[in-house]
Amino acid sequence: MFRTIEWTENGVRMIDQTRLPADEVYRTCRDYGEVAEAIRSMVIRGAPAIGVAAAMGVALGVKHSSARTVHELRAEFEIIAETVSKTRPTAVNLFWAVKRMREVFESSLRADADASEAEKIARAKARLVEEAQRILAEDIAVNEAIGRHGAPLLKDSGTILTHCNAGALATGGYGTALGVVRAAVEAGKKIHVFADETRPFLQGARLTAWELARDGIPVTLITDSMAGHFMKQGQVEAVIVGADRIASNGDVANKIGTYTLAVLARENGIPFYVAAPLSTLDMSIRSGDEIPIEERSAAEVTHLAGVPIAPEDVQVRHPAFDVTPHRYVTAIITERGIAREPYTESLKALFSTAASPASPTPRV
Amino acid sequence: MFRTIEWTENGVRMIDQTRLPADEVYRTCRDYGEVAEAIRSMVIRGAPAIGVAAAMGVALGVKHSSARTVHELRAEFEIIAETVSKTRPTAVNLFWAVKRMREVFESSLRADADASEAEKIARAKARLVEEAQRILAEDIAVNEAIGRHGAPLLKDSGTILTHCNAGALATGGYGTALGVVRAAVEAGKKIHVFADETRPFLQGARLTAWELARDGIPVTLITDSMAGHFMKQGQVEAVIVGADRIASNGDVANKIGTYTLAVLARENGIPFYVAAPLSTLDMSIRSGDEIPIEERSAAEVTHLAGVPIAPEDVQVRHPAFDVTPHRYVTAIITERGIAREPYTESLKALFSTAASPASPTPRV
Repeated sequence: MFRTIEWTENGVRMIDQTRLPADEVYRTCRDYGEVAEAIRSMVIRGAPAIGVAAAMGVALGVKHSSARTVHELRAEFEIIAETVSKTRPTAVNLFWAVKRMREVFESSLRADADASEAEKIARAKARLVEEAQRILAEDIAVNEAIGRHGAPLLKDSGTILTHCNAGALATGGYGTALGVVRAAVEAGKKIHVFADETRPFLQGARLTAWELARDGIPVTLITDSMAGHFMKQGQVEAVIVGADRIASNGDVANKIGTYTLAVLARENGIPFYVAAPLSTLDMSIRSGDEIPIEERSAAEVTHLAGVPIAPEDVQVRHPAFDVTPHRYVTAIITERGIAREPYTESLKALFSTAASPASPTPRV
Repeated sequence: MFRTIEWTENGVRMIDQTRLPADEVYRTCRDYGEVAEAIRSMVIRGAPAIGVAAAMGVALGVKHSSARTVHELRAEFEIIAETVSKTRPTAVNLFWAVKRMREVFESSLRADADASEAEKIARAKARLVEEAQRILAEDIAVNEAIGRHGAPLLKDSGTILTHCNAGALATGGYGTALGVVRAAVEAGKKIHVFADETRPFLQGARLTAWELARDGIPVTLITDSMAGHFMKQGQVEAVIVGADRIASNGDVANKIGTYTLAVLARENGIPFYVAAPLSTLDMSIRSGDEIPIEERSAAEVTHLAGVPIAPEDVQVRHPAFDVTPHRYVTAIITERGIAREPYTESLKALFSTAASPASPTPRV
């Protein structure tokens, strides 16, 4: 089995998702700048995986620090944190992970007031490396819990439509939306997946089709605009997607095209599920209107594998995400259970049962 | 200005739409088999353009016949008609054009009972060449009329979203959906077009963006799954698409993805217009359920310009069209005027005012 991301002695090792499915190659980021660049260029992507990468990037940056004083180390931490935070604006897991690393950093510095500066620095470095690895391990466990909660929502056999990649590649492992699919398959259900190719970056064609095929889960690739047709024809039992950020009212930011699927699902009486860890929840915002939507480059739309597919100099828009209003969302599947309308209440209840303010994602 | 298709002494000349926008090259089909292959491989596409090509293919085939008797010529006509008819199943204009050519063929043979076999054959050949050219000229005039009827539906300024290419390239010239845009622009309206790229064949990215840019009409390219996002944001005034076949109840078969746009438009209170000549109307069927939907090759989904974009051997579905139920269609814009619900009545009324049973498309 492939590993989406892992901590190694040499740095942060990740499967290069820009090279899949043609080549299964791994890249080791040897400093935090390389981790930030890997996030920016989508070598690693998917909100939970971005969170793990951000944590590992921070750990790597601090580990390599040559600061001699706590004051110097704090200043360096801020530079590292800012560099990592500025890579992508929409997935809140990135900011969640950096915040969690900052809290661990500060608490490790405070832990033993009598320690020397050198001892404090050494301990902070060790604690951050430990915490980043814990975030990875937790993420996998969280996804397995999402799968356990979500699988009973699916019938014993049927076709699930998914968009983008909310699978093992989008997370530490197992996946959110595809975690639900995997758990259902493990429970003996006969699941077939329609994978939207997900233009422009083709995460569905390149990643979802690849990882499901590797697991022997039947998958059929379609273009994004075919989803509605198959829903109308009664060939889709449920839609399950991941999320990049969920507002406290249940509005969901996810890969561009998700809103369209939600509208089509409701029009056709098909349940529309969002599977995401609580770390994707942004309780600080009241609605999806407050979620920043990343606009990516025109070249990702106009070129494919270096081949131009549109006239030169054509005007392009490229919002990488959209917001699905909560009224279209049948349920949000989290590691703590399932939230339904009214989300303002159900999400708050799930969120406040989480382990600690420092780590909203519970250790499951 | 480019010519989508024209009759020449050497054969049927058409712009090769598989090579656009990179190369503007023309291909001359020297026999009807080459015309059929050009339709099948989408060198020429778009329902009205397919109709014109089919008519010219039939004319070319009969012109080249070495039949010595009317009996032999009739047998050859049937082979030619069948070859041309079997290229693509959904666009009804193909069958409409072949039927019209057959009627002209038969009436020319009947015209002068005293003529010799050789004279009859010569006249049939001449009449078919003439008729094919008339179909082309009529198609352009029809599109201009569609534009005149449709332009008043648009505000003085605004953004029109379109899908696939229902432009000059999809017709003899001027276009259906883009004919409405052109007429609005000619009337002084400030129109900006969002062109869906239209996977898998990318007619929007390759053709619509190209032909609008050539006309100086502002166009912004988006992927198919962005359309809903911009509609929700209030950035789309109206959706206008073409059609490959319209059932007598107003159900519309058009490029895959059209149904999705219609649902999104209604959800967002945006008018959804279909612009098509009456030759696209199939009065012989009661609903869209009876329209055959072409399933094209997996390779068009899994490869782009020869580059694989999905795992090898992945399962693929590729319906090239979908059916939009009439309840989502705000109006159908034809050369005879605008039809609205109830379509069963409004389309029948428009259809029965058409010139003659032999040529449902009126000479405008």
